[in-house]
Amino acid sequence: MASEEKPLVVVTCTAPVNIAVIKYWGKRDEDLVLPINSSLSVTLHQDQLKTTTTAAISKDFTEDRIWLNGREEDVGQPRLQACLREIRRLARKRRSTGDEDPPPLSLSYKVHIASVNNFPTAAGLASSAAGHACLAYTLARVYGVDSDLSEAARRGSGSACRSLYGGFVEWQMGERADGKDSVARQVAPESHWPELRVLILVVSAERKPMGSTAGMQTSVETSPLLRFRAEAVVPGRMVEMTHCVRERDFQGFGRLTMKDSNQFHATCLDTFPPISYLSDISRRIIRLVHCFNAHHGQTKVAYTFDAGPNAVVFTLDDTVPEFVAAVRHCFPPESNGDKFLKGLPVRPASLSDELRAALDVDPTPGGVKYIIATQVGPGPQTLDDPHAHLLGPDGLPKPAA
Amino acid sequence: MASEEKPLVVVTCTAPVNIAVIKYWGKRDEDLVLPINSSLSVTLHQDQLKTTTTAAISKDFTEDRIWLNGREEDVGQPRLQACLREIRRLARKRRSTGDEDPPPLSLSYKVHIASVNNFPTAAGLASSAAGHACLAYTLARVYGVDSDLSEAARRGSGSACRSLYGGFVEWQMGERADGKDSVARQVAPESHWPELRVLILVVSAERKPMGSTAGMQTSVETSPLLRFRAEAVVPGRMVEMTHCVRERDFQGFGRLTMKDSNQFHATCLDTFPPISYLSDISRRIIRLVHCFNAHHGQTKVAYTFDAGPNAVVFTLDDTVPEFVAAVRHCFPPESNGDKFLKGLPVRPASLSDELRAALDVDPTPGGVKYIIATQVGPGPQTLDDPHAHLLGPDGLPKPAA
Repeated sequence: MASEEKPLVVVTCTAPVNIAVIKYWGKRDEDLVLPINSSLSVTLHQDQLKTTTTAAISKDFTEDRIWLNGREEDVGQPRLQACLREIRRLARKRRSTGDEDPPPLSLSYKVHIASVNNFPTAAGLASSAAGHACLAYTLARVYGVDSDLSEAARRGSGSACRSLYGGFVEWQMGERADGKDSVARQVAPESHWPELRVLILVVSAERKPMGSTAGMQTSVETSPLLRFRAEAVVPGRMVEMTHCVRERDFQGFGRLTMKDSNQFHATCLDTFPPISYLSDISRRIIRLVHCFNAHHGQTKVAYTFDAGPNAVVFTLDDTVPEFVAAVRHCFPPESNGDKFLKGLPVRPASLSDELRAALDVDPTPGGVKYIIATQVGPGPQTLDDPHAHLLGPDGLPKPAA
Repeated sequence: MASEEKPLVVVTCTAPVNIAVIKYWGKRDEDLVLPINSSLSVTLHQDQLKTTTTAAISKDFTEDRIWLNGREEDVGQPRLQACLREIRRLARKRRSTGDEDPPPLSLSYKVHIASVNNFPTAAGLASSAAGHACLAYTLARVYGVDSDLSEAARRGSGSACRSLYGGFVEWQMGERADGKDSVARQVAPESHWPELRVLILVVSAERKPMGSTAGMQTSVETSPLLRFRAEAVVPGRMVEMTHCVRERDFQGFGRLTMKDSNQFHATCLDTFPPISYLSDISRRIIRLVHCFNAHHGQTKVAYTFDAGPNAVVFTLDDTVPEFVAAVRHCFPPESNGDKFLKGLPVRPASLSDELRAALDVDPTPGGVKYIIATQVGPGPQTLDDPHAHLLGPDGLPKPAA
């Protein structure tokens, strides 16, 4: 076997964060992670937000191990095991069908995994999608798997399957009980809409919000509106959103993005006991966006909120400077040593008196902690540079990884 | 004609505020004020909250006039005119059918109306229902109308028809295009559930919320969830709520009251642009109620919110002292010259250490401005004491009315 050529096979990959514009909320199968509706997302650029994962296999490893952001975690957690099992199953299947070279190393070899985010977990950004996509993708590379990774990523965290592609991605809910048709597909590549920009407005959370896994389960059990949304509203919205993306129709894209975010949070409120992810600052951002658009007489910016108070704002490149100035006006930055604007450079702009008057928002100093400016980006990448590995030749995390 | 017996006929009546536990939101006919779903409310006691209205008719009056809380208002506003027209139509009809004595004064006589609330409008309590119910009821008395006043009250303000009765009242949406079957009916009288108590938690509004007339119209036009709620959810909830009231089942009553309030606010959030009536303080009250109930292992208190941030809390008499103590703990009163507790007396109680620990809420001083403690009460009343008239013998407001 080829497995004897090297004592250690190491692969390092990166994967992106994705932001849903048609929201996923609720599973029809908890175990297989099958959703009650399809969803559609935008993949964010890894220059600003990414997970990096190194996987190493060796006949010398005595057990599977995992380190997240430098700290060893329990490798036995069910979601992680489901992903690992699925990748090994795909690798075995590939070997048994014999359609290509056999996998380079024995499937019985244990794996060491290390994973880091290039953004603070404390920011409340949904990191689990990037993390589980990166895990599935990296394990596939190290075990020599080429097939569709939707299931492996999905079993880790549902929305992770959408982080397997760049650009604009749909997660088709599928119909089969075994979930084989519940897969992610690219709707348009990252080059499709070069003017699109994404601003993440990081808001200080007053308390840790309810986790999305527990939240969506309670919603499925108690919200009559959620079932209706999934069955009667989302299918039409998937068609409409796909059309807006294909046509690069920002007005339609923006309006539908906002409506779908609002409807998702409406179903959270219809949950019993009710779930509130939006804070007063979130609602002020919503008001700011609607005032900004009303002033311009068109949808120039659009918000979406996931299971937390942070806003993700879509706009086109020529609108970024004025909108950032509007955010600064409504949420005067507090100097806390943090840079207010991170990511892509944004040229300064001043607000017109008319716009300033139109922003019917009482300024809330420090309400927005900082902004990350980013854009649409590609899917997972394999890094060739051995310096990128998070695990050393001994298979343990590098000291300064 | 009997109209010549007296130069001036004066009648003074009072009408109560009602709080919906199955919410009305959305009209199928704006002009006739016909709702898209039935609703059910609790009539509050007039010892704490009421509108008082005096109507006087005289052949000497040259025009219809109205004074609200001492200030003359435009009598030509459409809602007011619709009510006036409907009452005069009923009076004419009665006279023409001749089934009783003719009305005491000519229908051509002009009317003077004065109306006051015994609670500050600034408190953000829905006063329009009490106001329009009182207007319809008082005009009916002065013009000698005995028939169903649902339409007259409804044309002024939809939910006003529910303030025509005491106790527990349903507004049947009806099916007819002319609205003749869209009427209010008593489900149970005020004596039916003597232990039930109502606490109004008055919250300082950060800004004036969107009016309910404009709000519900936008919801009907833009919220897919609202239509589903009206058609598929509310009919079953009306049956269930009626049952809970009849059986005095507080657990069922409380849970359904909270769910329906949450669903109403969910449809507001699903409106585009979204409508937010709940503030962070409202959400803290919601959390407080769920923590309180979880601590007791049963639904002992239940919230409901209308088109503003104030909470109306239902509970039973033996729970009032402990819950008020919990509110004081979470929202320490700021001494602003206002009494924190108004209305029915509440005996002091202390919180157990266990309950205090269970209230997972950061104290927010001044978050609740004050509490009005009240109970279920009767419908409109006619006052016999001439001193109660808000209009003097000259048909103009009394100086100190």
